[in-house]
This record gives sequence, structure tokens and C-alpha cells, in this order.
Amino acid sequence: MIRIAVINGPNLNLLGVREPGVYGRTSLPEIEARLREAAAGLGAELSFFQSNHEGAIIDRIHAALGKEDGILINPGAFTHYSYAIRDAIQAVALPAVEVHLSNIHKREPFRHTSVIAPAAAGQIAGFGPYGYELGLMALVNVIRQTRSE
Amino acid sequence: MIRIAVINGPNLNLLGVREPGVYGRTSLPEIEARLREAAAGLGAELSFFQSNHEGAIIDRIHAALGKEDGILINPGAFTHYSYAIRDAIQAVALPAVEVHLSNIHKREPFRHTSVIAPAAAGQIAGFGPYGYELGLMALVNVIRQTRSE
Amino acid sequence: MIRIAVINGPNLNLLGVREPGVYGRTSLPEIEARLREAAAGLGAELSFFQSNHEGAIIDRIHAALGKEDGILINPGAFTHYSYAIRDAIQAVALPAVEVHLSNIHKREPFRHTSVIAPAAAGQIAGFGPYGYELGLMALVNVIRQTRSE
Amino acid sequence: MIRIAVINGPNLNLLGVREPGVYGRTSLPEIEARLREAAAGLGAELSFFQSNHEGAIIDRIHAALGKEDGILINPGAFTHYSYAIRDAIQAVALPAVEVHLSNIHKREPFRHTSVIAPAAAGQIAGFGPYGYELGLMALVNVIRQTRSE
Amino acid sequence: MIRIAVINGPNLNLLGVREPGVYGRTSLPEIEARLREAAAGLGAELSFFQSNHEGAIIDRIHAALGKEDGILINPGAFTHYSYAIRDAIQAVALPAVEVHLSNIHKREPFRHTSVIAPAAAGQIAGFGPYGYELGLMALVNVIRQTRSE
Amino acid sequence: MIRIAVINGPNLNLLGVREPGVYGRTSLPEIEARLREAAAGLGAELSFFQSNHEGAIIDRIHAALGKEDGILINPGAFTHYSYAIRDAIQAVALPAVEVHLSNIHKREPFRHTSVIAPAAAGQIAGFGPYGYELGLMALVNVIRQTRSE
Amino acid sequence: MIRIAVINGPNLNLLGVREPGVYGRTSLPEIEARLREAAAGLGAELSFFQSNHEGAIIDRIHAALGKEDGILINPGAFTHYSYAIRDAIQAVALPAVEVHLSNIHKREPFRHTSVIAPAAAGQIAGFGPYGYELGLMALVNVIRQTRSE
Amino acid sequence: MIRIAVINGPNLNLLGVREPGVYGRTSLPEIEARLREAAAGLGAELSFFQSNHEGAIIDRIHAALGKEDGILINPGAFTHYSYAIRDAIQAVALPAVEVHLSNIHKREPFRHTSVIAPAAAGQIAGFGPYGYELGLMALVNVIRQTRSE
Amino acid sequence: MIRIAVINGPNLNLLGVREPGVYGRTSLPEIEARLREAAAGLGAELSFFQSNHEGAIIDRIHAALGKEDGILINPGAFTHYSYAIRDAIQAVALPAVEVHLSNIHKREPFRHTSVIAPAAAGQIAGFGPYGYELGLMALVNVIRQTRSE
Amino acid sequence: MIRIAVINGPNLNLLGVREPGVYGRTSLPEIEARLREAAAGLGAELSFFQSNHEGAIIDRIHAALGKEDGILINPGAFTHYSYAIRDAIQAVALPAVEVHLSNIHKREPFRHTSVIAPAAAGQIAGFGPYGYELGLMALVNVIRQTRSE
Amino acid sequence: MIRIAVINGPNLNLLGVREPGVYGRTSLPEIEARLREAAAGLGAELSFFQSNHEGAIIDRIHAALGKEDGILINPGAFTHYSYAIRDAIQAVALPAVEVHLSNIHKREPFRHTSVIAPAAAGQIAGFGPYGYELGLMALVNVIRQTRSE
Amino acid sequence: MIRIAVINGPNLNLLGVREPGVYGRTSLPEIEARLREAAAGLGAELSFFQSNHEGAIIDRIHAALGKEDGILINPGAFTHYSYAIRDAIQAVALPAVEVHLSNIHKREPFRHTSVIAPAAAGQIAGFGPYGYELGLMALVNVIRQTRSE
Repeated sequence: MIRIAVINGPNLNLLGVREPGVYGRTSLPEIEARLREAAAGLGAELSFFQSNHEGAIIDRIHAALGKEDGILINPGAFTHYSYAIRDAIQAVALPAVEVHLSNIHKREPFRHTSVIAPAAAGQIAGFGPYGYELGLMALVNVIRQTRSE
Repeated sequence: MIRIAVINGPNLNLLGVREPGVYGRTSLPEIEARLREAAAGLGAELSFFQSNHEGAIIDRIHAALGKEDGILINPGAFTHYSYAIRDAIQAVALPAVEVHLSNIHKREPFRHTSVIAPAAAGQIAGFGPYGYELGLMALVNVIRQTRSE
Repeated sequence: MIRIAVINGPNLNLLGVREPGVYGRTSLPEIEARLREAAAGLGAELSFFQSNHEGAIIDRIHAALGKEDGILINPGAFTHYSYAIRDAIQAVALPAVEVHLSNIHKREPFRHTSVIAPAAAGQIAGFGPYGYELGLMALVNVIRQTRSE
Repeated sequence: MIRIAVINGPNLNLLGVREPGVYGRTSLPEIEARLREAAAGLGAELSFFQSNHEGAIIDRIHAALGKEDGILINPGAFTHYSYAIRDAIQAVALPAVEVHLSNIHKREPFRHTSVIAPAAAGQIAGFGPYGYELGLMALVNVIRQTRSE
Repeated sequence: MIRIAVINGPNLNLLGVREPGVYGRTSLPEIEARLREAAAGLGAELSFFQSNHEGAIIDRIHAALGKEDGILINPGAFTHYSYAIRDAIQAVALPAVEVHLSNIHKREPFRHTSVIAPAAAGQIAGFGPYGYELGLMALVNVIRQTRSE
Repeated sequence: MIRIAVINGPNLNLLGVREPGVYGRTSLPEIEARLREAAAGLGAELSFFQSNHEGAIIDRIHAALGKEDGILINPGAFTHYSYAIRDAIQAVALPAVEVHLSNIHKREPFRHTSVIAPAAAGQIAGFGPYGYELGLMALVNVIRQTRSE
Repeated sequence: MIRIAVINGPNLNLLGVREPGVYGRTSLPEIEARLREAAAGLGAELSFFQSNHEGAIIDRIHAALGKEDGILINPGAFTHYSYAIRDAIQAVALPAVEVHLSNIHKREPFRHTSVIAPAAAGQIAGFGPYGYELGLMALVNVIRQTRSE
Repeated sequence: MIRIAVINGPNLNLLGVREPGVYGRTSLPEIEARLREAAAGLGAELSFFQSNHEGAIIDRIHAALGKEDGILINPGAFTHYSYAIRDAIQAVALPAVEVHLSNIHKREPFRHTSVIAPAAAGQIAGFGPYGYELGLMALVNVIRQTRSE
Repeated sequence: MIRIAVINGPNLNLLGVREPGVYGRTSLPEIEARLREAAAGLGAELSFFQSNHEGAIIDRIHAALGKEDGILINPGAFTHYSYAIRDAIQAVALPAVEVHLSNIHKREPFRHTSVIAPAAAGQIAGFGPYGYELGLMALVNVIRQTRSE
Repeated sequence: MIRIAVINGPNLNLLGVREPGVYGRTSLPEIEARLREAAAGLGAELSFFQSNHEGAIIDRIHAALGKEDGILINPGAFTHYSYAIRDAIQAVALPAVEVHLSNIHKREPFRHTSVIAPAAAGQIAGFGPYGYELGLMALVNVIRQTRSE
Repeated sequence: MIRIAVINGPNLNLLGVREPGVYGRTSLPEIEARLREAAAGLGAELSFFQSNHEGAIIDRIHAALGKEDGILINPGAFTHYSYAIRDAIQAVALPAVEVHLSNIHKREPFRHTSVIAPAAAGQIAGFGPYGYELGLMALVNVIRQTRSE
Repeated sequence: MIRIAVINGPNLNLLGVREPGVYGRTSLPEIEARLREAAAGLGAELSFFQSNHEGAIIDRIHAALGKEDGILINPGAFTHYSYAIRDAIQAVALPAVEVHLSNIHKREPFRHTSVIAPAAAGQIAGFGPYGYELGLMALVNVIRQTRSE
């Protein structure tokens, strides 16, 4: 059984409400429900966490140490400046996958840069809620590959 | 009755104590008292919040959703890097007015840029504590205009 | 009695006509009429000036020397490159308040920078014609504070 | 009949005298004579204006409002910094065509950028006096297309 | 049945041979075989194309017009400078998904920018050959959503 | 008789189909037909070429050597990065005129720079298909001037 | 007796575990034990604090006001973007010394800049856990000098 | 006899009044009186001009054509952005010397660049009113050298 | 016997004709003849290739895999933007030497940067046709050293 | 016994005389006397060197090869541009510690960057003469650690 | 009697020989002879120094301390990078005047910046050998003003 | 007979000792011995010079005037900032060839730029000690060509 922490950053608790033109109409609990289902099929167990507090996200990443096998993270706006979250992921040395609902590479220039990316296995952006499912499959795949090495 | 959240960011709890040459000698409770008075005359009701925690400010902005009509915010140093607070204001889609005690546009270069501005109706900077009263008037005006549209 | 020069820069004579989506439908004479009223209540006397000529604006600022107590200025597009107007304000050493109809900090990048700001007490941006009234109040307040020091 | 304001910026009164290696040997009156001829053939009536004063150019652009159908402009060095002229063109909302005698895109780097361009239908550069005739044709074409829409 | 063009850019014909430390040991035919299988399960039909010629890739994108429903593209090094490929995708106005074997956002700075991204629905980077399968799923999802709108 | 090579770069074969909001509804063959007519009146003979391949465009420019008198070129997206095309024009040392359908100076920043310009006599941008006719007239004029020198 | 707040920022709770190649194998409690010993010999009393929360660090700095004589701080990744922590140190106006385990000036470019530095007496970087002892000595020295002035 | 136009730009009419800490206590008429005296000894005849209008300065430079032998100019703040004045000096092709009261190279960064310099023989900065006398000597020298060539 | 691919990029087929002031009067066949002679003396066998097509150059580099021992390349203008050629050289992992006829480091700024350099053993620039002979010697030397390791 | 070269760069011979507001009133011989004392307690032997000549400093660093165990260096203004000194330290491969009297990270921007840092174990800045003692302790510690590895 | 050190930097010993098109045909001894004459008339005594060694120039500046009243310096190419010479001038706190033979502000961009300027009273550039005489007059004037304060 | 000055800059005296991974194991005397041999075959006579002092290198370049026919120079780290050495080479107006042991264009970014290049005929980088021999051949070739012109 693969255990995965699914972490959502600031303002993602408002999904479905917040700028639906950009972020869609699906709520976070709906996304989590779908993800749990997808996880079942992949032999993975998920633990969900959302916070608007950078420090709480760092604490949660630390808590994964020795308890979980990987991190699926949508860091929200922290993507673009939280070197502390990037350091946290590097500190626990767990495989991490970065997910973004919108295609950040075609929005405002400040959203083109992810300071988290150097600590992540890969990045998926632009596919809305479905991106989380893709991210989960990608992360499971990364973890399996690492195990089989 | 217009309900307004008045939000102050990091270090503003030290007003009156902190660098009085730059920020003046009036304390935050004194500013709030004056503001409440001014609000009475404008038919507005204020709810005050100060925090040094970015996450707590985001939570407070979310809490305004469906409960308040506008946000008067002095984001302190978060003005210059908290894309998460900017996203929070855009997420709740309430009119917001940005206030700064000092004229940030004539201080250090990093203070010339507000990453919050794209989410705000307008900005008032440089008038010390009185700037909050101006900001309140401005915000009430914006809310009234929106209502009458 | 406080005497104040109210100076408007290029293209502001076209207010009400020019890009109403950005600048609104109120004309400059209407703004001036409202301002005169507001001034009466504040014990201030206003003298209005508008020009599309940078040099004429500089001449007018010089003319304030020894005759007026402060300057309320919307420098229009000169905001972004007229170091000569900034030097003029510093030369006469009168308190000045910068007003902008739109929130320049959320428009095109070149509009985010004010070369005038280092010579001004403060800046008010984004509140349409009402911003002039706020600016007048702010300027009167600055002048009163200076006098009482 | 199409009425067009032909506006020339700073130093263009010296054409034929000024740096003939760069700007050629034809004087401005000669260019205007040729243009008038060309206009006749196109069913257009021209009104000429030249000034070294940015403010005078803005005033002239404003004067076109309701009186002329388009603007043919060589802003000279103002091309590179006069945001006020650009705002003037946008304010009167008339089709404008930008003409440059030399190919500004192969001269000093500061001449590669036109701050006027965002307010213009198009730009013609590098063809000497003949560029004005091309610009006139282009402008007449733009005006006709707009009318036929 | 959904028809998809799978386009690979320069040097991807050498996959399995080229820098296996960065790009892995799977060859392009192997990836294509796996993808075809995955496509079968998704009700999609794939047409494969690889070229080291920018022009040939543009021609192939044009050929998709009216014949295919979406584009899965790994533009290789063209990602970082081929504005012509980006224009081609925008010209045919088909949904496109960008795939990268490595996490380009943690490699050399020039690889952090995709000039293709503004023309793509989304981007997947860092998951090796498996990223193509994720990209295929993502693209099929985008096409289905568009159809159901 | 003046012989001219008319060269169109990537994606211009899709004219009329591609983003008509930006590039209009006239197809390339229609433009070529009109141009041929205009050429007749100017005593010029045209040879048309379009390619999405940078190398093919360079080959075509080389082929003009000793066979044609000038080049009318719309380099499409190659305008912004193909130093090789610029070198090709300088290598054959024929007068060249650069045409752009849209006013590239008011679109995305990367489109403001032409790396081709230093090799061209002049540039015409923003007048849609009619810009080619203007460009042809400009080029014929440049060639005639050179001959008469 | 000199009282000093020893503040550690994000991810430093993982010392000894986190990237030992970069940060060494000594844990934070071990560092604190050594520091307490060193403090005894210097006539200083230490109070330790670690948090992954920027806001909690600001609160702790404020708490030092009137209670402690100086601050020894390793801001972790906040070094590079927390203008709020810098403002906090300037607000309490206590002498502060910045310590970094690694030589940040030879790592990734973003680590070369400390936004905290303008609020600190000095900086010590690159000496691992021993750097804290050096920082303590430096801070005690700064406090003694200030007292004797 | 050498005839020289002495041209002063914006705000220099306020000399002696304006920021005496930066610009000194000597008025412009006093400087002109001294200069006239110095000119007498050098066999030069001066004609003085001051304006806050960029356009008026350009007109005055043009007026020097065929009437004067050189230009002594303190362009004030126009130094840093008036490409139009630079073009004017190049257009009349007279030797020009640039004078600045303060050492612009040690003030704010925007004052380090002179866009006028490429059109001037040389520059003198930092010597207060005496700088004009040095500039006059320098200019007379340049004119004499040119004559003797 | 050492086998070497000698690859020339865009416009080098015009050598001797193209801008002789910059590139000299020797044609490419002449250079190749000289090189073949030099190769004989060095125990090397050369295979020549020139193309104006980036893709064809990449194909040719791939073709060297398993067939040749090194690459002597003058990438022409592709030097400055073809990340695809650089990736191709890294993909085949053969020693490569970069040759430039002119000293690119003293020409226009865009020519100072080689994006190919990180994939090459070394670079020779500024010695005209003779530079190819030096490059050949250098490459043979690199190959011999690698073999003897 | 640990042997250490203590090297001071340009203008440090004037310590105590030079800008005492920035650099303090202690002379270099006084600092050296204190350092020698401190060294005695640490089992270290010091050899002092000061020069205003970059080359002499490089020679002195070379002279340490095989004779000394570490380098304590205050490179003065060379810190910001002498890549040659940095190369010298890397060439001798001895542990080096960089000391600065003032906190260079809060002074003029050019002083924020140390080109020496990539060759140094660590950096101490801002503690005046006492910084040398801290630097000595740090260096001795680094040398001892290296020995015990 | 005013004593002045006249210091010339690298390559100025070659004056008259070196690039006469840029630097003229007068040798340094000739300039020194003229300067000595001019000094006599101004009541000044000069001591000449030239070196190609940055360190020697710093030593010479230090030697002026307590012996001379001012420094006339042409730092040659050191103007653009020797922060050490700038620090030396600030260290001795003597008035200094910077002289350049050519108008550095119209040459290559790297020559537009003087890192020495912040330590100098003023700058004279572009007047060839005569600039030294102007510089001497300027320096004597500065020294006299300082004395009379 | 061709006479050539072979000049080596800072740290090159340590060749063979210094970072052999980057610079190889051959000492400078060994390189000089090989070069002398190669020179014999080319009819050239060499004079060797190495210094860590920028000033000494400038003096040596000056000494070549009238005595030598060309300069073979490896400026070491001075390559990247010594505008004074570049000016020295331009001052003596002798052909110069720049040699670098490593391929500076693929190392740290600051090593990609040579401020010396504009004064050199060409550059050879990346071929270790053998690069000097190539440089010598190149220089002899340049000198011969110049003579035969």
C-alpha cells in the first residue's frame, strides 16, 4: 500500500466559489472524493490537508517523514515565492508532484516561475481538477519506479 | 448599513512604538477608535483584525465572504510579496482598498511595487493614520457606486 | 485660509469624453465644481489649472511659490517620465498630493512607476473623480500638521 | 471627403537641413506639397501641423476631435517617451498612422521602441519622404474600412 | 472516435540512446507502442510524427486541421524559441498538450520558459515516457469537455 | 522591368483561416492576386514563395541573387528570432522590405523586436493585406532610387 | 546578565536529518545545548525558539521588546523574501545577528541576497553549528559596545 | 568674435531659491552676469535663454542655426529623457557643452545617464555656478580648435 | 584513421560572395579543399556538409553516430539560438569543435553568446578560413587524447 | 601548530583614519596585535600581510601553498570584482574565511555581492575589528575539522 | 599655496601615441608642462604621478594625506571598475576632480558609468588635454570654497 | 623573423598544480618549452611573461611597442573585467590572440564574457595547453596576412 499526502495551499479551500472562469466549478471536497476513488484503483491511500498558512504546510510536509511515501501538492500562490516550502520538500526527501489547476505558464509572468519545481519530480498544469488524478498516477508511478530500483 | 473588514498586516500592532520617524506616534487602537467614529458618520460598521500571520489574514479575508461588503487593508510588508493575499482578495471578489501609512513610492525600491494592487480598487499612501479615514471614505464610495450600478 | 493649486496634466481636459471605460463620465469642470464645494467646508481656497504642456505645468508650480500652501496634482501621463515636474515640486518645497483617477498600479507596467512620488507627500489612485476630494482632504491635513509642528 | 490631420513632431521643421545622411534632402514644405497632391487623388483633404512642443501636439490632436477623420503622425523623438501623446491619440479615438523617415528598428536601441504604437493602427518606417505618401494611403484605407464596417 | 496527432520534436528520435541519465532508456517506438495501447482503452486513434525540422512540424500541425481533434506534442528544444510552432498551434485552433520527459523547470534556466505554453491547454513535465500516457489522458479529457460544452 | 521575390514565412499559408480576429479573412492566394495586379501597374514582376521552413526561406533568398532586384518579405514568427534569415538578406545584399499584417508593436512584447530589421530598408506593419501593396510600392521606390544614384 | 532570544526559522527543526551533505549531522537540540554552555561563559541567558511559521517568528521578535537585549536569528529560507521579519526586527530596534549554517553566498543565486540584512548588525555564514557560537559572541560584543557608549 | 547661446532648462530660473543644499545660493542672473564678464575676456558674446518648456528650448536651439557658433546648455531634468533636445543639437550641428551644477554621477541612478551627451562635445558636472565658466572656456576652446582645423 | 564530419550552417554556402569585408573572399569549396589537404597530414578523413536548414544539420549530426569520431562545426547564425543543435551534439556525445570566421565576441552583442558552446570541447573565432584548419587540428588532438585515456 | 596567513586588501592600512563612522577607530596594527593574542590561545601562528595591490595579494596567497594551513582575508573593495583573487584561493585550495568590518549586505548594492565567496568556507561581516577574531576562530575550527576527517 | 596631486591611470603614458583619433596627439609630458604653467597662475603647486598599477595609484592617493590639498585624477579604464580607488579617495577625504580626455558618455556603454564619481567633487569629460586645465581650475575653486567655509 | 610576446595572467604560474580537473597537469614552463619548439618551426621568436599584477601586464604590453610584432595572451581572470588591459592592447595597436585553457563559454556565466575580445584578432578556448600552439599559429598567420596586405 502506497501512502500519499495530498496538500493544497492558500485559497484552494474556496475552489468552486473562487474565480470560476479561471479555476472551474468543482469544490475541493469533490476533488478529494474523486481522488480517493482513483487512489483505490491504484493501491494508494490518501491523507488530505489544506491550509492558507505556509507554516502549517511546512509542518504537514515534515509530518510525512517516515509516515508517507510521497507528496501531491498544489502550492497555490506559494508556488511563486515560498522557498521555505521547497526547502521542506527537499528536507524530507520524499518524491513530490506539483499540480496546478490552470496552465500557469500562459498566465501573468510571475506565475511562470515555480520556486518549488527544483524539489519536485514533475509538474502538471492546466487540466483543472482532473490534473490531480493525473498527478496521483504520476506520483504512484514515480514511487513504484524508485522502489523497483 | 455597510459592513467593512479592516485588516492590518505584520508589525502594525507595534504602531506608535515602531520607528516613529517613519510610521508616526499613533497606536493601532487609537487609529481604530478614530476609524469607528468616522464609520458612524458614513453609515458603516467596522470589524477590526490584525495579524502577523499571512495565513491568518487569508483566513480573515475568506471569512468576509457573504458577511461583509468590503475590505480596508494595510498589508504591511506582505504588500510586496504575498501573491496569496492578492489571490484571496480576488477569490472573495469584494471591493478592497489598500492603505499605507508612509508614501511607499518614495522609499526603498522594493516598496514601490504592490503585488496586492491588481486585486484592489485603489491605493492611498503617505498620509499616516489619516490615510485610514480616507481609505474608509473611498471604500464606502466604491461600495455605494457598485450598489447603484 | 489655506490656498491650494489644483493642477491637471495632459488629456485631462478631455475627461468624460476620453475612454470612459477607464476614466469615467464626469468632466473636469464637474470635478472642479465638486472640489470647490468640498474646499469651502475645509476652509480652503482653490485655484484650478490644466495644461497639456509640461512646461506650463512647471511654470504654474513655480507660480505657487509664496502664494499658495500646497499642490494637488494629477500629472496624467507625465507621472511616468517628467523628472522636470518632480524637480519643480521639490524646488518650491510645498506639500504636494498626487491623484490618479484609475488604479495605475494595476494597469500597464509603465504606469506602475511614478517619478513624481519622491517629491509628493502621498498618492491616491483608483477612486475616480472622488479621489480628488480625498486628495484635497489629505493635503489640507498635511498642511495643518506642518503648521502645528 | 476624408479629412486628415498631418502632424510632425520635433526637429522635423529642419528636414533637408538636418543630418541629410540620415533624413534626406527634402524639406517639410516639399513633403507637404507632394502629400497634398497625393491626397487629391485619394479624395482626402489635409491639414498640416508641425511643432517642437509636446503640449502643442497634444492640443492639435484634441482639436481633431469631431473635425477630422484620422491622424497621420511622425512624432519624431517623442515616439520614444511621450506617453502623453499616446494617451491623446487614445483619448480622441481616431485612427492614426505612425510614419518614420528612417528605419528606426535598425538605429540606436532607444529608437526601436515606440510608446505611441499601442495607440496607432500601424507603422511605416524607413522610406524617407515617400513614407508619408504610403502612410496617407494606409490611413485612407483604414478609414474607408472602418466606415464600411 | 477521437483522432490525435502525436508530434515529437528534435532529437527525440534518439531516445534511449541520448543522455540516458536525463532522458531514460526507453526508445521512441517503445513509447509509441505503449501510447497506442493506452489510446485503445481511451477510444482514441493516434498518428505519430517525429522530425528534427521545425518547418516539418509546422506542416504537420497544419495537416491536422479538419482531420484530427487534438495534438500531443513534445517540442524538444523548440519549446524554448519556436514562436512559429506556437503560432501554428494557435492557427489551427486545436487543443494541444505539451509533454516533457524531464522536469524542465529544474534544469538550466533557458529550459524554464516555454514559448509554446500560451498556445497549449496544459503541460506535463518530469515523468519520463509515462508522461506521454498522462498527456494523452489529459488531452482526451480536454477534448471530451470541449465537446460536451 | 523590376523583378521582386515575395516571400511569406510560417503559418501565412493559413491566412484567412488562422485567427481571423488578428489576421483578417483574406487568403494568401487572394493577396498574391491583388499584388500581381498592383505590380503590373508599377512595372514590376513578382515571384511568390511561402514556406514554414526557415531553411527553405534562406535558400529562396539566396536564389534571388543575380535574378531579382528586391525582396518583399513577411517573415512571420521568424521575425523575432531568425538571425539566419537576417544574415541571408545581408549576404545577398538586395533591398528588402519587411511587411507585417498586424501592428506587431502593440501586441505581445516579444513581437516588438524584429531581428530582421537591421537587414531591411524599411518596415510596414498593421495594415492587413493592403500592407503588402504598400510594401511593394515602397520597395519599387527604393529600387528606383538606388538605380538613379 | 545579557538576555538573548535565539530564533530559528523554517526546516531547522529537521537539522541532522535534512540534507546532511549541506547542513551537517548535528541536531538543533544539540546546537542549543552547546550554545547554552557558551552563553554561560559569556554572562548571557538564552531563550530558544523555532518555528516554520513566519507569523510566529514575528510574534516572537515582538515578544522580545523590553524583555531581551538582542536577537540571534537563523531565518532559514525566510532570509530571502520575508520583508515582514526584517520590518519586525527594525520595529523592536534590538541588535540582531544573522547566522547561516552554509555559506549562502556560494549556493544558488537566490540565496545570495538577504532581505533581513539591512535590519541586522552583521552576518555569519558557512561555519555550520559553530556559526551559532560565533554569532552569540558577536551579538554579546555588539550589546556590550552599545551599553558602553 | 565668438557668439554663444547659453541655454538653461527647467527649474533653473529658481536657482538660489531651490534646494540650496544641492544647487547653491547663487541666482541665475548672478551666474549670467559672471558669465558675461568671463565671456568678455574670451572674446565671446553671449545670448541667454531659460525655459521650463522643452519645445521652447528646441526652438531656441534651432534659432542658433547660422547665427551662433556654439551652445552652452544645462538641460536640467531634460538631460535624462529629452531625446528631442538631443536630436535638436544634432540637427543644427553646432558644438555644444553640457553643464550640470551638481555632480549628477553621484546622485540618484536616473541622473547618471545623459541622453544629451551623444550630441555634446563634452560635459562638466559638480562645480556649481563656476561650472558655467569652465563650460564657456571649454566651448570657446572647442570652437577655436574646429576653426583652426 | 580519424573520421570527422565538417558541418557548415546557414549562409556559409555564400562565402566569398557574402559581405567580404566581414567574411573574406575565400569560397566554401576552397576552404574544404584546403581542409582536406590538412586532414591528410593529420591522418583524418573528412566528410563535408552544408545546409541552411537547422533540421538537416541535426539529421547530419545524428548520422555521425557510430560512423564518425568528431564534429567540426560552424553553426553560422544558429550559434546564437539553436538549442536543438546543441541538444543534438550532446545526444550523439561526440567531441565537437566550434569555428567562427569572424571574432564573434567583438561584433553585435547577440553574437557574443553561443548556445552551442556547452556542448562543444572548445571554440575558435576570428581567424577566417584558417580557423577551420586550426579547428581540425584541435579536434584531432581532442580525439587522440580521449582515445589515449 | 596551525599557521595562518592574515591578508588585508586595499585601504585597510588606513583603518582608524578612514571614514571612522563606517570603519571605526581601531588601526590595523591594533587589530593585528589583538589577533596575535587570540591566536596564541587557539594554538595558531599568524603571518600578516596588507597590500593595495591586487597582484601582491595574489602572490601572497600563492606563497601560502605548502607553508600555511589557512587564509583569513578581508579583500576590501576587491571583494566585489577581483575574480583573480578568487581564482588564486581556489588554486591553492586552502580553507579561507572572508571578513568584512561593516555589514556589506546593508550598504550600497555593489557591496552586496562577493565574487570571492565561492572560494571561501564562510563569511563574517558587520562586527568591526572583533570580526577578525571571530574569523580566526572560525578558520581554526574549519582547519581542525578538515584534519580530523 | 595649494598643493595638488595630479594622477593619471593606465595607458595614459602612451598619450600622443595611442589611438590619436580618440585621444589626440598631445603627450602626457606636454600636458603636464601646460598644467604646471596654468598652476603657477592659480597659486597651485602640482605633483605628477602616472601608473598602470591600480595598487600604485591607491598608494599615491594615500600619500597625499596630510601633504596635499586635492587630487586631479584621470583614472583611465579604472574609472569603470576600480571600487578600490574610489574607496581610497573617500578614505583620504580630499577633494577630487575626475578628468576624461574623451566624452565617455557618448562612447561604449561600459564607459558611461564612473564608479569613482561618488567620491569626486565633479567630473569634466570630452575636452582633450584642455580638460586637465579646466579640472585644475575647478579643483582650486573647490578647495578655496572649502577653506572659506 | 616574427617576434611575439607571450603573456600569461594571474594564477597561470600555478598551472599543473591548480585545479588539475579544470586546467590540466601541464606546468607553464612545459607549455613554454613546447611553444618555443613550435615557434622555431614557424619562424617566430617568443618572449615569455607571466604576472599576477594587472599593471605589470599593461607595462609588458606597452614594452612590446616597436619591439614585437604580436601578442599571444591568456589574461586569466582579468579576461572578465580588465578594461585597462583591453585599452593597453588597443593602444599599442599590435595584433593579439586570446587563449583560454578551458572552454570559458561553458563555465560560470561571468566567464562567458571577454572584455578583452574587442581588442583581439581572435579567440581560442577549450583545448588546454595545445590551445597555445594553435594560438601561436593563428597569430603568425594574422601577422603574415597583415604584412602581405
